[in-house]
Amino acid sequence: MKVDVLTLFPEMFAALESSVIGKSFESELVKLNLINFRDFTDNKQRHVDDAPFGGGPGMLLMPQPIFSAYDTIDQSDSPRTIILDPGGKTFDQALASDLSQSEHLVFICGHYEGYDERIKSLATDEVSLGDFVLSGGELASMVMLDSIIRLIPGVLGNSDSTETESFSHYLLEYPQYTRPREFRGMQVPDILVSGDHQAIRDYQLQEAIKRTQEKRPDLYQKFMAQDTNDS
Amino acid sequence: MKVDVLTLFPEMFAALESSVIGKSFESELVKLNLINFRDFTDNKQRHVDDAPFGGGPGMLLMPQPIFSAYDTIDQSDSPRTIILDPGGKTFDQALASDLSQSEHLVFICGHYEGYDERIKSLATDEVSLGDFVLSGGELASMVMLDSIIRLIPGVLGNSDSTETESFSHYLLEYPQYTRPREFRGMQVPDILVSGDHQAIRDYQLQEAIKRTQEKRPDLYQKFMAQDTNDS
Repeated sequence: MKVDVLTLFPEMFAALESSVIGKSFESELVKLNLINFRDFTDNKQRHVDDAPFGGGPGMLLMPQPIFSAYDTIDQSDSPRTIILDPGGKTFDQALASDLSQSEHLVFICGHYEGYDERIKSLATDEVSLGDFVLSGGELASMVMLDSIIRLIPGVLGNSDSTETESFSHYLLEYPQYTRPREFRGMQVPDILVSGDHQAIRDYQLQEAIKRTQEKRPDLYQKFMAQDTNDS
Repeated sequence: MKVDVLTLFPEMFAALESSVIGKSFESELVKLNLINFRDFTDNKQRHVDDAPFGGGPGMLLMPQPIFSAYDTIDQSDSPRTIILDPGGKTFDQALASDLSQSEHLVFICGHYEGYDERIKSLATDEVSLGDFVLSGGELASMVMLDSIIRLIPGVLGNSDSTETESFSHYLLEYPQYTRPREFRGMQVPDILVSGDHQAIRDYQLQEAIKRTQEKRPDLYQKFMAQDTNDS
């Protein structure tokens, strides 16, 4: 996968290299290309933003530097181009999985005070991470990249790992325990050390269902609907 | 505000320093303390994880290193302690605002394969960023910290900036434009350059309402309910 990122803060993306998915860059499963669009301004002061037409506080990213930077990206493979927008589709595991199939992604990182509406014409996907405001698109893009890249075959050591996770089957994970059996007065449930594998599987499924019902009734409904459709 | 982060990847948090909120660390409005809990293992190999009781793939974070690291944090001011969990409360602007009032936050960063259930007993807040899986808690904690820290008075230059944003009043932002008036054939709407301030305000409110109705009917309903309650 090829990933181009248009950003004013390319150095922030070093965080991805030191994370669990960092080895995907070393092994060249993923080629990350950081482009500082300040290098593409056509004004002497290298300004990237300007005051909004019609007034209002703050400064908006101008279209010119971002379009000029985007022009340098190979578009022969019609890359999926993602821009963060509060009105966009909410990012979720299905979208992560969809984007992980793509050969080429481009992320356009905005700016906390906003960007010129015309910049959106470059995007194939307007995406929102959730109902909160960030100071820029960088951290949100990194979250999405982490979520996407870990799904690429070969990136995580154990290929089973991504299959037993929450959201893959609309169930939260059951409570999990490791050593020691007792820690500061807190015990591991007896059944998990019983050696009765069928009883353990039953217990884990029951706990996963109970937890999903309690904490995420919306997911539980999807789980039940899926279960009915499958049978 | 004092922020302690328990993590295996402290170097990732350098990304926050080079972002817009980075100056809050220089000005000491926010004191960020990164704790690598691998330094607190009581085994010679410095292992932080172990196999789950009852079987299953992957390795879980053990309670001991995290509890021992947590013990070193001053708890006299009862810090809000946040752990990422898919079953947790979904992070949103209201939670960001609530946490931004706190004098002391602690973030416990998990691990993509999971953590021992007993670690949750340290948390005051189980939080989910959304319905997707990440390789660790670091990027999600950074997103939350960005969203929280930017609300602390004095962190952003223009104190008006946070008030006109999406989610503050359940309306998405209206489309915004800056120079030039025409760019690659795309025009700024005439009304925004009319100089008629009342007409501009009316247009912007209409556009914000229209966009919210179309893209986020759930937010629009909250906006209407709020409007009724206020009058």
